[in-house]
Amino acid sequence: MNRKKLIIIKIGGSVITQKNKNLKTIKAENLQRICKEIGEAYSKKKIPLIIIHGVGPFGHKLAKEFRLNEGYKDKRQLSALPELHKDVRELNLKIIKALQKNNLPAISFSPSAFWRLEDGRLKKQPTEIIKKYLALGTIPVLHGDLLIDNKKVFSVLSGDQICYYLAKELKSDRVIIGTDLDGVFDSDPKINPAAKLIKKISRENYQKFDIGGSTAIDVTSGMRGKLDELLKLADIGIGSEIINADIPSNIAKILSEKRIEKKTMILPSTTK
Amino acid sequence: MNRKKLIIIKIGGSVITQKNKNLKTIKAENLQRICKEIGEAYSKKKIPLIIIHGVGPFGHKLAKEFRLNEGYKDKRQLSALPELHKDVRELNLKIIKALQKNNLPAISFSPSAFWRLEDGRLKKQPTEIIKKYLALGTIPVLHGDLLIDNKKVFSVLSGDQICYYLAKELKSDRVIIGTDLDGVFDSDPKINPAAKLIKKISRENYQKFDIGGSTAIDVTSGMRGKLDELLKLADIGIGSEIINADIPSNIAKILSEKRIEKKTMILPSTTK
Repeated sequence: MNRKKLIIIKIGGSVITQKNKNLKTIKAENLQRICKEIGEAYSKKKIPLIIIHGVGPFGHKLAKEFRLNEGYKDKRQLSALPELHKDVRELNLKIIKALQKNNLPAISFSPSAFWRLEDGRLKKQPTEIIKKYLALGTIPVLHGDLLIDNKKVFSVLSGDQICYYLAKELKSDRVIIGTDLDGVFDSDPKINPAAKLIKKISRENYQKFDIGGSTAIDVTSGMRGKLDELLKLADIGIGSEIINADIPSNIAKILSEKRIEKKTMILPSTTK
Repeated sequence: MNRKKLIIIKIGGSVITQKNKNLKTIKAENLQRICKEIGEAYSKKKIPLIIIHGVGPFGHKLAKEFRLNEGYKDKRQLSALPELHKDVRELNLKIIKALQKNNLPAISFSPSAFWRLEDGRLKKQPTEIIKKYLALGTIPVLHGDLLIDNKKVFSVLSGDQICYYLAKELKSDRVIIGTDLDGVFDSDPKINPAAKLIKKISRENYQKFDIGGSTAIDVTSGMRGKLDELLKLADIGIGSEIINADIPSNIAKILSEKRIEKKTMILPSTTK
């Protein structure tokens, strides 16, 4: 294989922003630590890298208040668009700065400027410019955003869907999802201390869990959306890993292909 | 004519940034005043509006130091790309905030994320998303940027070329260029106090001025680049106006179609 490997890493909004507060506040220490870990791994091995980040309350607050995730309902919603875009770009700029401080050649690509959704999904949207910037040795950084939608006027693009789309289009070798949990659990670990981590998920065992309409996999905390995207990736032969980015060194370890005990692997359904 | 008018207004880098300093500093008072003037005019008459801004030293400093405007020469240049993109976005965010503070529904479109150049020129690049945001009643804001170039690897896109391209593609009715001069002069007014303002320029009289290789039109201070773009626009029937945005009320007046004594009009060569 001549092609250089490509890693796509997503940093969840809950890891870098105060998710439970309505205020737009960053977890500055976490952000700095994570950027440092990525920076150190990257300095050793300059594998092509794309970074995607969630936006937490920088996007969700207005999106929820104006029900923007449901698409266009009434004119009042439009008043929220400029502020939301500004907030999200403000967070993104802070992340770009933190990455650059750690010697990562990060360049911002705000999806709303160049992608449109088709009823909530990315279909045949341009990736050529991102590829060119990758080829120049820079690190494209994308983020969850509000996009023009050909059916719903506008709708929300999650960082998780960006992972799926870019991994598929750019044939990524590794997809790493950093969250504030060790991975996928059989019940909500934030409520149930006996919740069990599920170490391996495939389309096959996921369907088993799901039998009868109920599921033994906990899908709160945005985990359902993540799993949906990652299982779609698994279906086309691309595996992924969900790790806890709140735990120091986890990002460093996974980027250097060192062992992390607690994580969830989503196994590809077919071999590439 | 059913279609609502479209105004494209460009605010030069020299108006909103300290151009002569190498430091990245905004002229905060100017920025606030100009945003207020645009905001007040817009609140009276919500004509579709696109705002383009120059970047001054936020972009030019690195571009000059690494000769980025000449395209790819050597690997060393690549190290400047991430910082340049970050600097330019930082300026843009400040402008977006100032616009929004004045009730303008401004949304950022950083050209490098969705446009490529063809040997320094924009050709058949997407404008659909910008049109959609215009139709939603928001104000797209674009800025000078460094773009992937299909021939030169990368090159600089000036705010002036963005004016030309969008005015052409979106069939703009009015193009307004705010600079730190009253318009185009027959010699450099910053050096020669007797320099005469040229009130009307057309392709025809411009060529007359230009006879014999020398020109009676002063083309320092970035005026040549501006004129080149605006004469191209005139050639396809779109006139434009160069005004002094440093003078309070000028922007307000021109947006409300009130008379400004000192300005340069670039007259369309053909009638639309």
